[in-house]
Amino acid sequence: MNTRGRHLLVEYTGCDFTILDDLKRIEALMNEAARAAQTNIVASVFQPFEPQGVTGVVVVEESHLSIHTWPEHGYAAVDFFTCGDSAPERAHEVLLSGLRAQCAEVMLVERGTGAPGRGMQLRSHRTELNALPVETAAESSMARLVS
Amino acid sequence: MNTRGRHLLVEYTGCDFTILDDLKRIEALMNEAARAAQTNIVASVFQPFEPQGVTGVVVVEESHLSIHTWPEHGYAAVDFFTCGDSAPERAHEVLLSGLRAQCAEVMLVERGTGAPGRGMQLRSHRTELNALPVETAAESSMARLVS
Repeated sequence: MNTRGRHLLVEYTGCDFTILDDLKRIEALMNEAARAAQTNIVASVFQPFEPQGVTGVVVVEESHLSIHTWPEHGYAAVDFFTCGDSAPERAHEVLLSGLRAQCAEVMLVERGTGAPGRGMQLRSHRTELNALPVETAAESSMARLVS
Repeated sequence: MNTRGRHLLVEYTGCDFTILDDLKRIEALMNEAARAAQTNIVASVFQPFEPQGVTGVVVVEESHLSIHTWPEHGYAAVDFFTCGDSAPERAHEVLLSGLRAQCAEVMLVERGTGAPGRGMQLRSHRTELNALPVETAAESSMARLVS
């Protein structure tokens, strides 16, 4: 079985406060994201934070999708880890739209790619404003350095 | 509430086949790792793979710890994401020892650290052999570039 995976780390900012604090809506969004990424859902565990916010994970056969929200900062920290032919970028599109994020910072790490000590590669690190990719010079340099 | 978090991505290689395929043992190790990291466990979801391997997540108040194993390759892909005063490095020590890994590749990404589009920083990317840190010239350069 192939060990290759794609691990997408995403920071969403400028999100809708009400959505970030709505556990049922966040859980529904994350399950929709898992389906969009063409993964098979095994379990879905979500928990409210006090006084606000949500933490949760969707365990899928192809790995997992997690979210942790800070409504008071309009901020959500997310990761989508998928193996095989799944498409974590589709999950990202669902969240970017569903959270009404003004900005998304996206880091793609390839996993399980090579020999011991050479299994992870930071493939890209970019910022998207209002769903429009905008890559700064520094991020562009970093992407080149690590590719 | 502070949004800062530490996200440790780890690839363990040269691990014990039997341990990687033992769901109960992997779940116990991950729960021990969560306690070592001084996190508070909310839920623990583990699932066997066919024909072998385990996938699972420990959801904690401070975020999550996940593992996906490929026993046939002696390989496990792990992430520990913690906020506040938790110590994901302690969780890593538990797994490094518990999986009997010959090699660990560790990437530390700081999360929620700044303004929109500047929230993630790759702080280090190193390889440990037999629990002895060994940093290659290339990795050392990368750590400097991104710090």
